[in-house]
Amino acid sequence: MKVMNEIIKVQLAHRTIREFTDKKVSDDVFAQLMEVARRTATSNGMQAASIIRVRNPEIKKKVSKVCNQEYIARATEILIFIVDQYRNSQIAKEKNSTDECARDMDNFFSAYTDAVLMAQNVVNAAESLGLGTFYMGSILNDTEEIGKILNLPQLTFPALGVALGYPNQDPQMKPRMDMKYRVFEDTYKKYDNYLEELKEYDEEMTTYYDLRDANRRVDSFTNQVVKKLKSPLPRRQEMLNIVKKQGFNLYLKDE
Amino acid sequence: MKVMNEIIKVQLAHRTIREFTDKKVSDDVFAQLMEVARRTATSNGMQAASIIRVRNPEIKKKVSKVCNQEYIARATEILIFIVDQYRNSQIAKEKNSTDECARDMDNFFSAYTDAVLMAQNVVNAAESLGLGTFYMGSILNDTEEIGKILNLPQLTFPALGVALGYPNQDPQMKPRMDMKYRVFEDTYKKYDNYLEELKEYDEEMTTYYDLRDANRRVDSFTNQVVKKLKSPLPRRQEMLNIVKKQGFNLYLKDE
Repeated sequence: MKVMNEIIKVQLAHRTIREFTDKKVSDDVFAQLMEVARRTATSNGMQAASIIRVRNPEIKKKVSKVCNQEYIARATEILIFIVDQYRNSQIAKEKNSTDECARDMDNFFSAYTDAVLMAQNVVNAAESLGLGTFYMGSILNDTEEIGKILNLPQLTFPALGVALGYPNQDPQMKPRMDMKYRVFEDTYKKYDNYLEELKEYDEEMTTYYDLRDANRRVDSFTNQVVKKLKSPLPRRQEMLNIVKKQGFNLYLKDE
Repeated sequence: MKVMNEIIKVQLAHRTIREFTDKKVSDDVFAQLMEVARRTATSNGMQAASIIRVRNPEIKKKVSKVCNQEYIARATEILIFIVDQYRNSQIAKEKNSTDECARDMDNFFSAYTDAVLMAQNVVNAAESLGLGTFYMGSILNDTEEIGKILNLPQLTFPALGVALGYPNQDPQMKPRMDMKYRVFEDTYKKYDNYLEELKEYDEEMTTYYDLRDANRRVDSFTNQVVKKLKSPLPRRQEMLNIVKKQGFNLYLKDE
C-alpha cells in the first residue's frame, strides 16, 4: 500500500524552477507564506531568524551579481533568510542584561538552522499553491557583500535565499541516488567501493537534461563530485571570517 | 480571501509533540518519509547530507543523555540529520582526484543546509500523516559525543535531530511574535524600542502553558531571551573545534 497524500505528492514533485511567468504573487498568498514562516519550529522559541524580501530591481540585480546567476534578477520574489541575533541582543541590552550568548556559535548555529527550516517550510507552502522555487545557496558566494547590499547589522548573517514565482518551464526530475547510501541504522555505514555502487546511478544521471545548460545532457554524478571538490570558491571557503566580522565569537581553542 | 489548503493547514498547526503512543511507524510510512528526504533540494545536486535512524534502545538512551532530555529515549523514531562530505570525498579519492573542497566551509555549510532542509521536509510529511515531531537541536550539546555514539567518520557532523511518533499529548499553540519584526523589505529594519514593541506579545506569552514544565505558565518572551542569552553552554559554544576535529578546514585568516 503506497502512502500518499496531497502534501507528499507536492514534496515528491519538487524540481528547481528558474524561469517564471509575469504573474505576480498576490498579497494574500505572500501573507500566508509569511504566516507559515512564523509558525515554523524555532530553537527554544527564540525566533532568531528573519527574512529580507528583495523587491527593488536594483537590489535584485546586485544580489544576482553576487550569486553569479543572471536569472535571479528576473525572479518574481526573492527572499533572503538570515541568522538574526541582533533583535534578541537588543532585547537583552534594553533589559540591562548581557547579550554574550547572542554572539556564540551555539546561538549562531541554532539561528542558522531556524532560518533554513523556515525556508523549506515556505518552499513547501509555495509549491502547494502552484508556485515554483529555486534555492539561492549562491548568496554564500560573498556573504560580506550580501550584508552590505541588505544593510545587515551586527549579529546577523545571510543563510539561504529562495526565489519564487509562477513556473514558466517544466524541467525533468533530477535523478537522485538510492537512499541506502544515505540512511543508516544506529551507526554510519561506509561502502567499500562507491564507484561500483553508484554505477547505475551514474548512468541514469547522464540521461538527465539540465535546462540551465541549454538543454545539454549532464555529466555522471561521480564526475560532478570530482569537478565540485576540485573547484574552490575562495570567498565561500572563508565565510567564517565574515561570521566573525559580523560580531560573532568563534570560540576556538588554541591547538 | 484566505489562502488555504491541506498542506498549509498542517504547517500552521505545527506544535512540538514530546510524548508518543505505543503505535509504531510502519515500514511503508517510514519508506515514504525517506523518499521525501531523497527528493529534497540539495546544493549542486551533491546530496551531501545523510540520516542516522537510531533504533537500538541503548543508543537512544545515550543520545538522550547528551541532549539532557529523558523523553528522547522514549520517542518512537529518532533521526539524526548529518553533514556528510565523507561519501563524496571517497568518490573523489576513488577517482584519483582531490577531495580538498569536501573539507572547506563552503561545502560544510552547503551540507549543513541540505541536512536541515531534509529535516523540515520529513517533518512536514510526517505531520501530514498524523505523526507528531520534535526537533532535537540539543544534539549540539556535545557534537563530539554524538559523533562517537553514531560512529560518524571524518567529514561528517551532526546537524539536527528529529523525533517522531503518534502524538500522546495535545499541547497549546505557542505564541509567536508579529512578523513585522522579522520580515523586512530590501533592507534590515531596526526598531527603536523592542520592549515597547513586544509588550503585547510578552503578555500573550504568559498565558501559554508549557507541558514540558508540568503545565506551568511560562515567562514573558523578553524574559526568556534574557535568560537564554546569559546562560552559556560551553560545549555548544565551542562546536567549531569539533567541526575542525572532524577534518574540516575553517579557513580562518590571521587578524
